[in-house]
Amino acid sequence: MIIDIHGHYTTEPAALHAFRDKQLAGLADAARRPASSDLGISDEVLVKSVAPQLKFQKERGGDLTIFSPRAGGMAHHVGSEAISQQWSRVCNDLIHRICSLLPDNFVGAGQLPQFPGVSPKNCIPELERIVNELGFVGVNLNPDPAGGYWTDPPLTDRHWYPLYEKLCELDVPAMIHVSSSCNPNFHHTGAHYINGDTTAFMQLIQGDLFKDFPTLRLVIPHGGGAVPFHWGRYRGLAQDMGRPPLAEHLLSNVFFDTCVYHLPGIELMAKVIPLDNILFASEMVGAVKGVDPHTGHHYDDTRRYVDQVKAWSAEDRHKIFEGNARRVYPRLDSLLRKRTS
Amino acid sequence: MIIDIHGHYTTEPAALHAFRDKQLAGLADAARRPASSDLGISDEVLVKSVAPQLKFQKERGGDLTIFSPRAGGMAHHVGSEAISQQWSRVCNDLIHRICSLLPDNFVGAGQLPQFPGVSPKNCIPELERIVNELGFVGVNLNPDPAGGYWTDPPLTDRHWYPLYEKLCELDVPAMIHVSSSCNPNFHHTGAHYINGDTTAFMQLIQGDLFKDFPTLRLVIPHGGGAVPFHWGRYRGLAQDMGRPPLAEHLLSNVFFDTCVYHLPGIELMAKVIPLDNILFASEMVGAVKGVDPHTGHHYDDTRRYVDQVKAWSAEDRHKIFEGNARRVYPRLDSLLRKRTS
Repeated sequence: MIIDIHGHYTTEPAALHAFRDKQLAGLADAARRPASSDLGISDEVLVKSVAPQLKFQKERGGDLTIFSPRAGGMAHHVGSEAISQQWSRVCNDLIHRICSLLPDNFVGAGQLPQFPGVSPKNCIPELERIVNELGFVGVNLNPDPAGGYWTDPPLTDRHWYPLYEKLCELDVPAMIHVSSSCNPNFHHTGAHYINGDTTAFMQLIQGDLFKDFPTLRLVIPHGGGAVPFHWGRYRGLAQDMGRPPLAEHLLSNVFFDTCVYHLPGIELMAKVIPLDNILFASEMVGAVKGVDPHTGHHYDDTRRYVDQVKAWSAEDRHKIFEGNARRVYPRLDSLLRKRTS
Repeated sequence: MIIDIHGHYTTEPAALHAFRDKQLAGLADAARRPASSDLGISDEVLVKSVAPQLKFQKERGGDLTIFSPRAGGMAHHVGSEAISQQWSRVCNDLIHRICSLLPDNFVGAGQLPQFPGVSPKNCIPELERIVNELGFVGVNLNPDPAGGYWTDPPLTDRHWYPLYEKLCELDVPAMIHVSSSCNPNFHHTGAHYINGDTTAFMQLIQGDLFKDFPTLRLVIPHGGGAVPFHWGRYRGLAQDMGRPPLAEHLLSNVFFDTCVYHLPGIELMAKVIPLDNILFASEMVGAVKGVDPHTGHHYDDTRRYVDQVKAWSAEDRHKIFEGNARRVYPRLDSLLRKRTS
């Protein structure tokens, strides 16, 4: 089967946006706060809203997408911690409903109620709820809840440890994924996302996080940002800094997805990133929506690139499409085993 | 000939560091200010200080390096604008002395006295001095003088226009190069540099800078950050945003160097970046100093990678090693023509 580990709900019904407007308007004028977090969205509207994802999944031969709220929509820097708490619940609940309505197509990953300067410990109740009650198999962790100003500590700081403890206890991986940028220097999908990936990896090189959390698993999306392209630089920096070789230091715990929107990029990944660390993903319908005039196919139809890499055997591709995802997301594996047993 | 367009003076004599300490100590205690900006460094000490660069240049078959002050040392965020002015003059003067002592090996590129929140217009006198008086052929422009907090406007903002006007008038390219990071999230050479490159390119996609400055030339170092690896993403984002194709929109004005420290990275560049936009560079002695145990050669011996790319002919390699540099740095070309005439 083909598992896409990185899909966001980017086709939300208007009612969700209307709720968010009311919620944020309520910061300025309490009278405008939404009366309820029941959005009044019918199952029919929900199913219809993911028609684009279902269409692409079918056309591209995908089976199952790990589906989470719109990454740019998390906007942890906006409002207050209470706003983030309420917004995360609402967004996660919608994902849960979609996954319950279309269990063959979607499995949930969650948004955490982070807020800049606030301990990630406060996210634990929502993390437990989405995993234990909603059956989510993963979660997105924003390394920069300040939205482009990077005012919280690096991922290797003890600030984040309570969350890592809980992730290990629950056996759930985190995708390190920033949200929108309120810094005009950073276009969100064109700079902030890619910078977030690159930054996270370098923080992990500098630190010793996996000595403290040997079972923690982190997925770096968008092919790992700049990391595979600069693999020699990262190997060399680790070496100059007296860190262990990257394979030993990080690659039992750090994984990369295939959200790289051209064949040469995926071919590069095939050359430098060990096979066990590559997980199939497309992030559709996401950052890039168009059709590449050079190929006549959507830029984000990443399956085509994976299929074209000559160095990969059918067995290799099976790992990328399914095996690695089931290993990195054990709760997904359990779910799939239950279904087929 | 082989021109390395990206070398920094990372082997400065102790006297330069002592001066900097006094200069910054003077912020807290005026009595500690350096009495003079004459560092008392002899020509002999200067020549000796660049022995490592000369050795590598010779061993690797390089001829000439465009040499600028240590990028991390610019530290525009430190102190005050006056500190930055004084520090830039001192650093540029040292580069000038080295280039005068070893004119066959080094040609100068300068550091600008930027300071966060201050108009780049204030850098024009130093820019004119280094080009007109010191004979420098290029300059480093820091897109984030705040050192990892990105509080100044994007490069496409009119904030920067006075500097671009002067660069065009002088016919001098700018390398977009951040300095050290005072944000603990960003390792300077492992995250901040690469993020700076990626960020700058995306800003240029969003803007229309080269409509206003059709002759401005910007060099994005470190292979363009994440850009070649995500070339499909950038092509697709430009397309989704209704921008012209990248070749038309940016590639008459934006160039990438080859500071990518492994063969697969350079091979990727060869696949996606037009030949006319690639300039040879190694940034030695710089970010990565070690020897790659996989090859037995220094990571930053980038000539070996360029030589190994099968897709490039001898003529192509000539462009990368020399032709493109002479086109992008016309004052270098004039200098070399004068020497051989």
